[in-house]
Amino acid sequence: MTIFSSIQKPTLLLDENKARKNLALINEKILSQGKQFRPHFKTHQSAEIGEWFQEIGITKITVSSIEMAIYFADHGWDDIFIAFPVNILQIEEILELSKRIKLSLLFEDIRAVRFIDKHISCQISGWIKIDTGANRCGLKSDQFEIIAELANELEKSKHITLSGLITHAGHSYRFKTIEEIHSVYDGSVKTLLGIQDQLNQLGYSKIEISVGDTPSSRLVNDFGNVDEIRPGNFLFYDVQQYQAGVCKLEEIAVTVVCPVVAVHPEQNEVVIYGGAIHLSKDSHSWGEIQNAFGLVSLPAQNGWSWDDKKIIGYLRSLSQEHGVVVIPDGIPDEIIPGSLVCVFPAHSCLTVQAIGKYTNLDGETIHTMLS
Amino acid sequence: MTIFSSIQKPTLLLDENKARKNLALINEKILSQGKQFRPHFKTHQSAEIGEWFQEIGITKITVSSIEMAIYFADHGWDDIFIAFPVNILQIEEILELSKRIKLSLLFEDIRAVRFIDKHISCQISGWIKIDTGANRCGLKSDQFEIIAELANELEKSKHITLSGLITHAGHSYRFKTIEEIHSVYDGSVKTLLGIQDQLNQLGYSKIEISVGDTPSSRLVNDFGNVDEIRPGNFLFYDVQQYQAGVCKLEEIAVTVVCPVVAVHPEQNEVVIYGGAIHLSKDSHSWGEIQNAFGLVSLPAQNGWSWDDKKIIGYLRSLSQEHGVVVIPDGIPDEIIPGSLVCVFPAHSCLTVQAIGKYTNLDGETIHTMLS
Repeated sequence: MTIFSSIQKPTLLLDENKARKNLALINEKILSQGKQFRPHFKTHQSAEIGEWFQEIGITKITVSSIEMAIYFADHGWDDIFIAFPVNILQIEEILELSKRIKLSLLFEDIRAVRFIDKHISCQISGWIKIDTGANRCGLKSDQFEIIAELANELEKSKHITLSGLITHAGHSYRFKTIEEIHSVYDGSVKTLLGIQDQLNQLGYSKIEISVGDTPSSRLVNDFGNVDEIRPGNFLFYDVQQYQAGVCKLEEIAVTVVCPVVAVHPEQNEVVIYGGAIHLSKDSHSWGEIQNAFGLVSLPAQNGWSWDDKKIIGYLRSLSQEHGVVVIPDGIPDEIIPGSLVCVFPAHSCLTVQAIGKYTNLDGETIHTMLS
Repeated sequence: MTIFSSIQKPTLLLDENKARKNLALINEKILSQGKQFRPHFKTHQSAEIGEWFQEIGITKITVSSIEMAIYFADHGWDDIFIAFPVNILQIEEILELSKRIKLSLLFEDIRAVRFIDKHISCQISGWIKIDTGANRCGLKSDQFEIIAELANELEKSKHITLSGLITHAGHSYRFKTIEEIHSVYDGSVKTLLGIQDQLNQLGYSKIEISVGDTPSSRLVNDFGNVDEIRPGNFLFYDVQQYQAGVCKLEEIAVTVVCPVVAVHPEQNEVVIYGGAIHLSKDSHSWGEIQNAFGLVSLPAQNGWSWDDKKIIGYLRSLSQEHGVVVIPDGIPDEIIPGSLVCVFPAHSCLTVQAIGKYTNLDGETIHTMLS
């Protein structure tokens, strides 16, 4: 009787030991360099998993929505950074939160600064989002005039303390070598230090620097002159991180266990119950395959153990509820309708969001804010 | 005071009139040709919306999971086709369902036929899934030997009636002209009729034919010699369907209303609260843009009205919680932090799954099985 004998439909299996090890490694690395560790909780979204962080002394966290901040505040966290450009329409929740916890908000529009400052009564921290090349959101790092304008607005506000510069160097995900990831990290930090310096010259002191992507957090040895590190994905990792050389396959701490519903030996293909609504549509490359949606292995006898050699195939397509797995070397005898395969997700954060709860290796459910 | 004044975060807005019109159009078309209409409820997943179908006389439905079948059975539907290769691990639920309703199951592996036949006691219908070119799942149409073997297994089973052949010509989504979609449809039907003929020669009679994609259902004028049509997406449509020429923009019946959180006039870009967890990562092309994640318009004064000219931009990137909208002609004055934009999703089915409930134009919540 293993954990697998109780699984009947797509199930997000979590190996707590792996996740705790991943956490300890990053925590020790960040602390050993004297940096503040403010992990991003959008990856796991779970109060119970949050306790693993509390147990090792972590007291400050990052989240990506106001709902997530409220959820973790309700579970005892009292120093929360909502690393998302503030949505002023949720002013009531923000006001409420600002009275309960030490709240940090992210700004990239001066009108949002004015609105928030006008409507709250407690002191909060205000951070400026800088785009150092990820090209997602934030103020462009070469537009100092706009950055200075925002800093000025924060500085003159009554209730918001201009606290620092934040970036998410998400472009580190696009690179494959340690040298490239180092170079992205060093470039991002250098850019932020340059802006910090210019702001200092304008008289704004105590500007901290916060950075946050998992590849850099794992691979960069010297974090340089930053104050805070905020990765999230490192807790579970996934195939995107594995493919980028950030983690080993055996460090991936979550897998989606999926029932086999049909086997087609003529095509070396297996149809599984497990689709876009479980794994999301995020993809990864795999050898010559441009778009795969996960790597596939077989359940292990005693829980969960595998290495690169145990990857037997990849998900070549993903519909709403089902996926098609290619097993290039032929279908093992144990794969029959009603058997199970393990799918390592392309992107663990979106997979957690899609399934909304975990099953640990003892068969217990670990809830998230979604379940 | 419009519906928009009460929206504070990403909200799936549903125009009931549009959806009912889309439904009436397809229903009349299918009935006028004397075909059985068995709509796919995986698109809306809502008992309340299901009532709109009941009101116009629809009694048979398609779903994509056993949970969905149970949900709709609990809401009074008693003739349900689970158009998903049967997951034998859920035998208890299948057994239970088979006692309550007229149940149809999909098979593409003879071992699943044997298992189900052995474990149930009531009569159910068994359909064979044929891949007519979509290349997702099903038995390859040119492997008649395997199809005949499955038909034989169904025929000799005690509790499963060999009922017919089913295909989802999902490759119709890849084509852009009406001629191409006609050609895909005609090819699929011809293939199924050929297999039906061969099975008849083997002595299997009463083999029905069921087809189901939205592009063909909408665009093909003569459904030919099929028995049943099972589209789902036609109820709401989306940008993928619009781009494929299947629907008009004004027929899209759902939009995700998203708060603006930052405006960057220098880049003609707007950051919105609305990401992969609301819209899914499905994408569409838009002019020269290969991967856009939705089209963007502004809310209308009196509810919801727009046409092609009112599309002001597209979503160029999608993170977990936020998206970046490009507005090529410059940002309209009304777009400021705290204002709202409407995002037409690339794929409405996955968007419904992600958000899990609707708000209608009167501000009322319409629940799904997920909420």
